[in-house]
Amino acid sequence: MHPKSVILEDAHAVLQSSFLSDLRKLGTLVSKRGSSLEDYEKSCKEASILVASGGSKIDKAYFDRLPNLKLITVFGVGYDGVDVKEAKKRGVLVTHTPAVMKDDVADMAMALLLNCTRELIEAHKFIERGDWMHASRPLMVPLTQMKVGICGLGRIGEEIALRLKAFRCEIAYFATHKHEDAPYQYFDNLENLASWAQALIVIMPLTDKTYHMIDSKILKALGPQGYLINVARGKIVDTEALIYALDHKEIRGCGLDVLEQEPQIPPASLLNKPNVVLTPHAGSATLGSRNAMAQLVLENIKSYLEKGEVLTSVPELKKA
Amino acid sequence: MHPKSVILEDAHAVLQSSFLSDLRKLGTLVSKRGSSLEDYEKSCKEASILVASGGSKIDKAYFDRLPNLKLITVFGVGYDGVDVKEAKKRGVLVTHTPAVMKDDVADMAMALLLNCTRELIEAHKFIERGDWMHASRPLMVPLTQMKVGICGLGRIGEEIALRLKAFRCEIAYFATHKHEDAPYQYFDNLENLASWAQALIVIMPLTDKTYHMIDSKILKALGPQGYLINVARGKIVDTEALIYALDHKEIRGCGLDVLEQEPQIPPASLLNKPNVVLTPHAGSATLGSRNAMAQLVLENIKSYLEKGEVLTSVPELKKA
Repeated sequence: MHPKSVILEDAHAVLQSSFLSDLRKLGTLVSKRGSSLEDYEKSCKEASILVASGGSKIDKAYFDRLPNLKLITVFGVGYDGVDVKEAKKRGVLVTHTPAVMKDDVADMAMALLLNCTRELIEAHKFIERGDWMHASRPLMVPLTQMKVGICGLGRIGEEIALRLKAFRCEIAYFATHKHEDAPYQYFDNLENLASWAQALIVIMPLTDKTYHMIDSKILKALGPQGYLINVARGKIVDTEALIYALDHKEIRGCGLDVLEQEPQIPPASLLNKPNVVLTPHAGSATLGSRNAMAQLVLENIKSYLEKGEVLTSVPELKKA
Repeated sequence: MHPKSVILEDAHAVLQSSFLSDLRKLGTLVSKRGSSLEDYEKSCKEASILVASGGSKIDKAYFDRLPNLKLITVFGVGYDGVDVKEAKKRGVLVTHTPAVMKDDVADMAMALLLNCTRELIEAHKFIERGDWMHASRPLMVPLTQMKVGICGLGRIGEEIALRLKAFRCEIAYFATHKHEDAPYQYFDNLENLASWAQALIVIMPLTDKTYHMIDSKILKALGPQGYLINVARGKIVDTEALIYALDHKEIRGCGLDVLEQEPQIPPASLLNKPNVVLTPHAGSATLGSRNAMAQLVLENIKSYLEKGEVLTSVPELKKA
């Protein structure tokens, strides 16, 4: 162990206090909040470990401020905020927390899909207003036999597919390559998947290639009866195109756990719409997932301190 | 065919116009709305067929007004509104529409469970208020490994279980008898199931025995972390006991598709509660289910008119 390791945390919004206590056992924990600017700058120079969140932006300038950095542990599965090429160049290890949160994120995708197809928020308001006494709600579209396209068939995508199967949906997916052992129809073209599907669930990492991948063309292909669900990253969807599609009834509705400008309040055109359901990037926001993620971050740090190796490196930096 | 059969409908709230057109091809269709009181009383005397909804109350007095009644077709799976003993005594056949709606009702149970465990309505409001910029929502309880008790393992209960399995829940059930081929733990005592479970899903017919079956004792057993989901009949739950349990944090939350006094506006104590989700008896309210239910009602009437027999009799009146 290195009792004097300085551990910087840039993830306070998602960390529980019990996890912070555990981190303090591994080194000197420094947070931006709660430090004077001078102390903080000094700690940055000494820090060898950085605990980041999925929302942290670790770019070249950030690396320049942390000259002794050896390890970045991202508390989350997506690590699009980290410039991994820069980390590689500087010999900095990068870990994330895959697998442990897959069930909860898949559950959130299903929760949003069911909310959209059954318009649960609207149904709830219908009763609270007393409308049930003298009116009926429109009939909804069954999930049974619905054609659902999954955009990304990683661990979470596969969990979503297992759930959709239990709901008797027809399942197809788009991915960078065909998964030979996946018993679902494969589309190598996202527009074709969107044309086929009545609901499209986005669960891909954010990269240069997936930025604004869901654009006006894909939304048009999804069509006026189609639902868009996003449990990946807000920036994968072109928000302006989405608002246009909703306003012009080019799609039927959407359920978004992530937003392009989160946690800013979303554009007014996304608010108070009966066919838009929003949740605050809460896919993994359960006690179970967050504890498991915290545990994995701690184990990565311990493994690094004891053996100079990590357990769950991001794929680009994995040893051959 | 009996072109002069008078068909009375007491289900306008749930019937689509295309179905009413199809009924008109089988006889003279009479609705209370749209008839003078005199004409309506005359039609009642002639009517041989009654199309009822799950909410229709067909008691002895109702039978007395329909002396020529031969067939009641309930548009719905629950037929608790029909006095079946009285029907038997008078030689009136009674049908319902089981099976065709099982997927949609099971989906609604899952939608309500996910809404409760993830507090989706609250999460949505959190974003609409702009709270996300400066606050975090509390962490929720994962559905994975949650102990879920199903109260009633008929066709719909079995569908709910299949879905829960995909969500990796632990599943147990209470029913009047053990289902030998069901791979779930059986409780012959509802209070014991409620003590075991973190969520209880009610999907049983309403009978004298199940009226207010979910009472203060069961809710206390469910406990302060427990969720109650009801997709069966409102009267199975003692609403006063439920409100007491919610107010005193004896249970954590509930999702109700049915209410004791529906479609009346619910008691104020059930409204605007962050841990209560309400939907307007919409389990089967999809185009798919309602069309299939309408088709089954029509086929029962045709079969009766052609052969004097029905296809989906209620169990009590089934021929041996």
